[in-house]
Amino acid sequence: MSTDMHLQKFAVNYEYPVKFTRGIFETANTTLVDSIKSSNGPMRVVFYVDSGVVEARPRLLDRIASYCEAHRDRINLVRTPVIVAGGENCKNGWDGVRRIITELGELKLCRQSYVVALGGGSLLDMVGFAASLVHRGVRLIRLPTTVLAQNDAGVGVKNGMNEHGVKNFVGTFAPPWAVINDSEFLESLEDRDWRGGIAEAFKVAIIKDEPFFEFLCDSASELKGRNIALMEELVKKCAVMHLQHIATSGDPFECGSARPLDFGHWAAHKLEVMSGFSIGHGQAVSIGMAIDSCYAWKKGLITEDHCMAILKGLAESGLPIWDELLERRDRKGTMEVLSGIEDFREHLGGKLCVTLPNPLGQKIEVHEMDIDLIDECVAFLSDYVGGE
Amino acid sequence: MSTDMHLQKFAVNYEYPVKFTRGIFETANTTLVDSIKSSNGPMRVVFYVDSGVVEARPRLLDRIASYCEAHRDRINLVRTPVIVAGGENCKNGWDGVRRIITELGELKLCRQSYVVALGGGSLLDMVGFAASLVHRGVRLIRLPTTVLAQNDAGVGVKNGMNEHGVKNFVGTFAPPWAVINDSEFLESLEDRDWRGGIAEAFKVAIIKDEPFFEFLCDSASELKGRNIALMEELVKKCAVMHLQHIATSGDPFECGSARPLDFGHWAAHKLEVMSGFSIGHGQAVSIGMAIDSCYAWKKGLITEDHCMAILKGLAESGLPIWDELLERRDRKGTMEVLSGIEDFREHLGGKLCVTLPNPLGQKIEVHEMDIDLIDECVAFLSDYVGGE
Repeated sequence: MSTDMHLQKFAVNYEYPVKFTRGIFETANTTLVDSIKSSNGPMRVVFYVDSGVVEARPRLLDRIASYCEAHRDRINLVRTPVIVAGGENCKNGWDGVRRIITELGELKLCRQSYVVALGGGSLLDMVGFAASLVHRGVRLIRLPTTVLAQNDAGVGVKNGMNEHGVKNFVGTFAPPWAVINDSEFLESLEDRDWRGGIAEAFKVAIIKDEPFFEFLCDSASELKGRNIALMEELVKKCAVMHLQHIATSGDPFECGSARPLDFGHWAAHKLEVMSGFSIGHGQAVSIGMAIDSCYAWKKGLITEDHCMAILKGLAESGLPIWDELLERRDRKGTMEVLSGIEDFREHLGGKLCVTLPNPLGQKIEVHEMDIDLIDECVAFLSDYVGGE
Repeated sequence: MSTDMHLQKFAVNYEYPVKFTRGIFETANTTLVDSIKSSNGPMRVVFYVDSGVVEARPRLLDRIASYCEAHRDRINLVRTPVIVAGGENCKNGWDGVRRIITELGELKLCRQSYVVALGGGSLLDMVGFAASLVHRGVRLIRLPTTVLAQNDAGVGVKNGMNEHGVKNFVGTFAPPWAVINDSEFLESLEDRDWRGGIAEAFKVAIIKDEPFFEFLCDSASELKGRNIALMEELVKKCAVMHLQHIATSGDPFECGSARPLDFGHWAAHKLEVMSGFSIGHGQAVSIGMAIDSCYAWKKGLITEDHCMAILKGLAESGLPIWDELLERRDRKGTMEVLSGIEDFREHLGGKLCVTLPNPLGQKIEVHEMDIDLIDECVAFLSDYVGGE
């Protein structure tokens, strides 16, 4: 019954560029083609393109074709771009994932071939998940087209699919080969998607960077008014903060007691599910931050003034800070959104870990939440928006 | 059109023990319970058990239950062990994977909960794949029960599922939390599974370790005769060599031009598929090594004597070195097994990389294969076994 043991230890090094550009498919713009490492002739490349982006930019497919044709020494476009319906729904069910898996097999993509995913965060998640499984991972280049995807979801190391009624219940840690943020795509966004990404910028600012928070509050009306230069600044600052957090947290794949940048997210994920995903992710995060900012104020972590500045900044950016779904209660009178705390505990690994500002611009992790106080915060927000 | 760039760089550190024991479910054997890290009371644990093992060991489920009960301070067995049909078929299709995903959701497993997979390599692959996706990876403890799983497939960092008619077409790199090899399980194996694992030992020996090759040739008859002490020695030596290869290759997740220990595998994978998986993996590898050893001999990489010693050693261990499927040809007269070379090229990432011995006990990678010479080798083997 003696036990011998061999301790297996190794490290895996990851490196990928996140590039910021404009006009990625202009022939003279080499950002994309420079990201394709060719050892021996042109490399096999397949594009998966968000249908929403194609609708907003009818010439996109032609421009992709011309670009690949002009750079055919490096890019072997093995088929016309595949148009995929984006949005949160593409993360439900396995049909889309299996279709891509089969397609990549039929196109004989190898591990050194490239999948280019162009679209919002949901499409990047779904295509990225499929690409991470084929041959245990083909090279994925992400071209995020929404603010949220460019400054948060699309630059990181994770993907996720909704299963079992829980957002991102399955997924993989799969760093991309490269990410290219083209600010031109932001110009054709609908207001909801333009504003949604502002929420993630508030998120990192509130818990990590007070000057950035002040920039956001000062810019809120202009951001809502679609000032592209300010938005480029926001995207870049937020993306780099996100990347630095991953690189310096000491636990990029969240194996231990990870501290993801998830302020406001326990309620956000739940609200998205409760709404059948009619509430956008950024909008849900905004509401979640409103709740948790009130909570932080009532717990004495931030001042009342700071809490009010947060609510004002979010609202002035065109983001919601309340939704009537917050009032939905079960038969025992418990707010339904509170079950988001249990989902969150489970997802994070048993020990609840909620990030709150303390003080503004810095963060604290708390491991329990006072349910009655959350109830109070929701009531406060209801009055606050009702009184506007 | 100027492009800014942020280069994202980080490393992920992995560490896991591979333990060798006997009688893992005897109450006094703490190998398993010691592998469960408990921060705060007992941890949620679910067992997935190979139906073949349960048939061979009818008291297994009772012993698992008693063991968990005796160690209930550390183990919270959240449900009776789930029996799963093992064997290569469990790697086809997504039903099994989705069932596990749903089950883990219903059982409220978190990222720090444990999935214990007990069975052969296929079951470990399928359960491991599912476990790697839920919450982007729950803790997986592998209890491999076959020689092949204990000395090769079950100790590494990969899992794989068959899709698109290609073995392991999808999968993830997902290092386990721990691996425990209990040699008692080997005693109830059928001969095919006992012998199959000997092939992987020959594989590493032929390309990495001549003394180990001599040990195998000297022990071949006794290994075939089921000498457990010799088998324990084989398993441990082979497992540690495999682990060291992963740790020292510089590319454990095969991101670049990985050099997996895949001598004999291009033909093996194809033969398995051609036979509808009626040929076992080890048996297929044995045939694949026979072909590639002849090839290495005819290319002048190893001596004729060494080639003959390999064929004799494999045969004396009870492993096949030929199968009539090798003679199957398409309408153009091309041997069907040769398409395994293309599948292999694709899987490895575009550039073919076949490992051959050069000389015996060392290896060389070649990037093309002489088709006519392979034909000759198959003809030679046909004569060789026909003349026995």
